[in-house]
Amino acid sequence: MLETIRWLSDEECLELLDQTKLPIEVVYIKCFDHHQVAYAIKGMAVRGAPAIGAAAAYGLVLAAGQIMSHTKEEFLAQLEMAARELAATRPTAVNLSWALTLLLQKVHSSPAGAPTVLKGLLLEEAHTIFKEDILGNRKIGQYGQELVPQNGNILTHCNAGALATAGYGTALGVVRAAHAAGKNISVYAGETRPLLQGARLTTLELVQENIPVTLITDNMAGFLMAKKKVDLVIVGADRIASNGDVANKIGTYGLAVMAKMHNIPFYVAAPFSTVDLGLKNGSEIPIEERDQREVTHHGGHLLTPTGIKVWNPAFDVTPHNLITAIVTDRGIVQTPYSENLREM
Amino acid sequence: MLETIRWLSDEECLELLDQTKLPIEVVYIKCFDHHQVAYAIKGMAVRGAPAIGAAAAYGLVLAAGQIMSHTKEEFLAQLEMAARELAATRPTAVNLSWALTLLLQKVHSSPAGAPTVLKGLLLEEAHTIFKEDILGNRKIGQYGQELVPQNGNILTHCNAGALATAGYGTALGVVRAAHAAGKNISVYAGETRPLLQGARLTTLELVQENIPVTLITDNMAGFLMAKKKVDLVIVGADRIASNGDVANKIGTYGLAVMAKMHNIPFYVAAPFSTVDLGLKNGSEIPIEERDQREVTHHGGHLLTPTGIKVWNPAFDVTPHNLITAIVTDRGIVQTPYSENLREM
Repeated sequence: MLETIRWLSDEECLELLDQTKLPIEVVYIKCFDHHQVAYAIKGMAVRGAPAIGAAAAYGLVLAAGQIMSHTKEEFLAQLEMAARELAATRPTAVNLSWALTLLLQKVHSSPAGAPTVLKGLLLEEAHTIFKEDILGNRKIGQYGQELVPQNGNILTHCNAGALATAGYGTALGVVRAAHAAGKNISVYAGETRPLLQGARLTTLELVQENIPVTLITDNMAGFLMAKKKVDLVIVGADRIASNGDVANKIGTYGLAVMAKMHNIPFYVAAPFSTVDLGLKNGSEIPIEERDQREVTHHGGHLLTPTGIKVWNPAFDVTPHNLITAIVTDRGIVQTPYSENLREM
Repeated sequence: MLETIRWLSDEECLELLDQTKLPIEVVYIKCFDHHQVAYAIKGMAVRGAPAIGAAAAYGLVLAAGQIMSHTKEEFLAQLEMAARELAATRPTAVNLSWALTLLLQKVHSSPAGAPTVLKGLLLEEAHTIFKEDILGNRKIGQYGQELVPQNGNILTHCNAGALATAGYGTALGVVRAAHAAGKNISVYAGETRPLLQGARLTTLELVQENIPVTLITDNMAGFLMAKKKVDLVIVGADRIASNGDVANKIGTYGLAVMAKMHNIPFYVAAPFSTVDLGLKNGSEIPIEERDQREVTHHGGHLLTPTGIKVWNPAFDVTPHNLITAIVTDRGIVQTPYSENLREM
């Protein structure tokens, strides 16, 4: 499997797989400072809530490496400025600010004062986030695969795979684990307009794993369900409010509505770090709206007439009552979500 | 407005606007025989149920022009062969076989025996189909616009406009009529993957009419409804079964499910010729599946990995219980559809 994020310790540089070019080209972007990382996150060279959390953590390590100050106070001030720049790249996924907060807390709470020591602590913490994300995904896979029948068709949306995480994946982690457990599954991948993460990335991961995959356009999902070709839906999450409402890639909500109508279980798979207990419900989750050129252009070419407006929210919110269960690295959560998430 | 279909009597040739190239290029295809018309229908240079009905009618006129036989029997035999070729191009829209049947009946029932006379009758009948389609659309517009509130946002899918008909349009005919009646409306156009008729054609028609239009990807419709930005949904139809089940562009069914969930009226606009009283329900409507390259490629470029399967149905079926009303050129039909359609 392709690596999404690679820390090159010799060069003190972060390599990010440029996912905008997949599956046609495999290109890595070398980032030597946090501005480059911020740019890569914003442009979605690296995307997926857990992956941008890990990338941002390494981005902060790069920022720390360039701070010349000799006092902890000054070091922290500059570090926080860099963290704000990284956090501002994309507003919806909570993993970004979660990872940055973890790193900042690490240095704040450390008794050490020397920036060189603090830089080491930051790198250590970034490595921990990276490794724990993979471990967490494997746990999600183990818990989640119990929900997958012995023979079944799974519909997924966008890419919540190895490419969206440090490795293995959340929703696709469940698919991988079910496949590894010998289950006879096949996957329908929604192409996920406008940026086609389903068509480009999810299909790629599944082909590489020899898991049968059928691509559909997003608007085919309803008819697919009506034809009884879907046994369960599983998607990732960018932020989960304390009541279980889930922000995820645009189109998720529509799938959840249609799954409900067809009595098909609808699962969300995400590390517990995606849960934002500070938010009462999904209406408080900020939804990023992106450039209209993502919709009006393809490969640099205009597809539409000029003079039109475009609405391009990158995410939507699925209310908890449409979600059968949320699979986390700490276990499976079901309704009542408010209580069960808080307890966990 | 651009003309979809033009009969050039001087040249005895049919000009079809190549809609695959819109809105970037305006190119007309000249057809001198029915094979060229069949090719244009199959390749979707001309598309939309009423438009392909009218185009096929003229295609049969072109076929008749080339028949050298001097007996009516031989003339009819060759004409029927050409009609079969035209009818086989696309299976879902009933307007295609409806128009061809009208023309064949015209010559069958005519007392005339001379092929030259019969050829004249065929051209006359094709002109009638063409003109009556526009008149019918205007009636649909008049009936349908009563359903549009004074201020409202209308969501539509694919293109059921002037480009999908002989002129004016069905769903967009209602939009045009509401606009002409001074209503303050704006339209959300679903882009309609894979061939983007919404993004390329519906937006173009509305921009030319100065009706405000906002483009969305198909998977944004649910979130748009959840945000209470849609007052009604209106779409066209490719075939309507006797119980009111509607086959229309893939994605229509999902919109109907989501409209139901949000208590948003869901209207279908189509000439009565779209109704196929021979079919008990929507499960009997043949659904065309098209080339997977429509999904995997864009502008000739591969977007996806190789080794995947693709499901590419061009239409889906919306059950009548999700449809608030069907607007036809004979009036508005509501539940119980079986009775009301048959009566009409």
